[in-house]
Amino acid sequence: MMRYRYKSYAPAHITGFFEICEHSDPKLTGSRGAGIVLEHGCVTEAEISEGNRVEINGMLEKAPTTRLVMESLAKRPVFIKSNFDLPIGCGFGLSGAGAVSTALSLGELFGLNMTVNELAGFAHEAEVMNRTGLGDVIAQVHGGLVIRKEPGAPGIGVIDRVSVASMKVGIVVFGEKSTQPVLEDADMKRRINKAGKSALKSLLKKPTLPNFMDLSKEFALGTELISEKARDAIEAVEASGGLVAVAMLGDSVFAIGGFDVLAEFGELRISRIQHGRARLI
Amino acid sequence: MMRYRYKSYAPAHITGFFEICEHSDPKLTGSRGAGIVLEHGCVTEAEISEGNRVEINGMLEKAPTTRLVMESLAKRPVFIKSNFDLPIGCGFGLSGAGAVSTALSLGELFGLNMTVNELAGFAHEAEVMNRTGLGDVIAQVHGGLVIRKEPGAPGIGVIDRVSVASMKVGIVVFGEKSTQPVLEDADMKRRINKAGKSALKSLLKKPTLPNFMDLSKEFALGTELISEKARDAIEAVEASGGLVAVAMLGDSVFAIGGFDVLAEFGELRISRIQHGRARLI
Repeated sequence: MMRYRYKSYAPAHITGFFEICEHSDPKLTGSRGAGIVLEHGCVTEAEISEGNRVEINGMLEKAPTTRLVMESLAKRPVFIKSNFDLPIGCGFGLSGAGAVSTALSLGELFGLNMTVNELAGFAHEAEVMNRTGLGDVIAQVHGGLVIRKEPGAPGIGVIDRVSVASMKVGIVVFGEKSTQPVLEDADMKRRINKAGKSALKSLLKKPTLPNFMDLSKEFALGTELISEKARDAIEAVEASGGLVAVAMLGDSVFAIGGFDVLAEFGELRISRIQHGRARLI
Repeated sequence: MMRYRYKSYAPAHITGFFEICEHSDPKLTGSRGAGIVLEHGCVTEAEISEGNRVEINGMLEKAPTTRLVMESLAKRPVFIKSNFDLPIGCGFGLSGAGAVSTALSLGELFGLNMTVNELAGFAHEAEVMNRTGLGDVIAQVHGGLVIRKEPGAPGIGVIDRVSVASMKVGIVVFGEKSTQPVLEDADMKRRINKAGKSALKSLLKKPTLPNFMDLSKEFALGTELISEKARDAIEAVEASGGLVAVAMLGDSVFAIGGFDVLAEFGELRISRIQHGRARLI
């Protein structure tokens, strides 16, 4: 029986710290660093249609990263509908989540005979081409607290993980922040890469959740990729004994513990560390 | 606060087909092939104790693979308790599940500052040394329908995945089968490696669940790693339109669909494809 509609899920991903790794080949471009894959994320439905359309949370959108995946993989016009349960552009890797869930749905819809890494590779490339992300897709096809040891698309980049249980992650969003300008500022890139490299080295020596959170917080403070509001929230949550850092690249704060204090700074969303990953549903 | 007891989960893993890849270094030893990671599996608790003990499903056991992990990682005597929800020695990769869940629990109990791959590496090595398994651990730290493209411990072996949803997997167990004698029979090894290599090549060309199941069934028939009872069950389930194969290395049959027919051959257990993986709980 031929089906005309397939659905996939992809988790959100919060990068705590990172190092930008550029290369002439987008499959080898990416980032080193570490981040938490979340149960929240997106569900994308792909359906045979009269013309190509992308709908994000019920609105027709340009969605360049998802669109590039669609143009690369769809053999006929399709209607892509992605629904996200976290705000877009705030550091949750949702362009990657949209792109990889689109790739998995299209793989099934058109019987493309590609593995998960092959399909997700298109999502990684689309992220790199559009400068919307560098390391979310490889984390999203793995799950957990992912250490990105070497950059690149799934199957090319090298990952490991910090051993953690499914802990609750509290999130407060202050505003949007675009990845693109940061990736184009040479001074900022140097600062990021110096801080990111050193944080990764420290995490590999002591791969624990508290150390990941501390290194992420120091990365945000050291690179000054942090708003005043985020700085205030971090100080307060820290004073209460919670572990807290900034979602890169976004103006959002994430915490393990200290949720009561964090809730004083804005709408508190509670997610969990996702040990699963992007997949057909 | 110092805790004296930690628990981890590890999923079962059914190999459908495989190729044995030996090397003088146990970390580089392993198998190529493909298999399904299941939601069923084991939970292991590690606790500071007066002397080293390993309890499996409530009985003190030798459990050489888990014991080797314990001896490698524990800094003080510990009591390891593993509980399995599938029968041991029947093709579900449970020696690997016990070993990797032990490694993760000990990592936390003793604050070993190791990543998931580093801890799981001890479980992989213990499997290889005891000849209880070759490719289960790397699959169990990844989850899904795992393709083992290159052999080795987690972080060394190369994996990819067939894109699948969380489908139900039906299982009927006919009896035990030890991995060790098969790994020591040179003729059998040649047959396995020829059939396994060819199956992997075919799966990578068409990485779909039905193709994985077909290639697995052909592998069991071609290598004659199949009992009469399993052969009868496979013929019947296949005739009813189900996808069915033998769990390697065990005398068990697993199926996607055709559960009513499969249930006529023995106690039917229903699990699901696990998209998560071994982790602290």
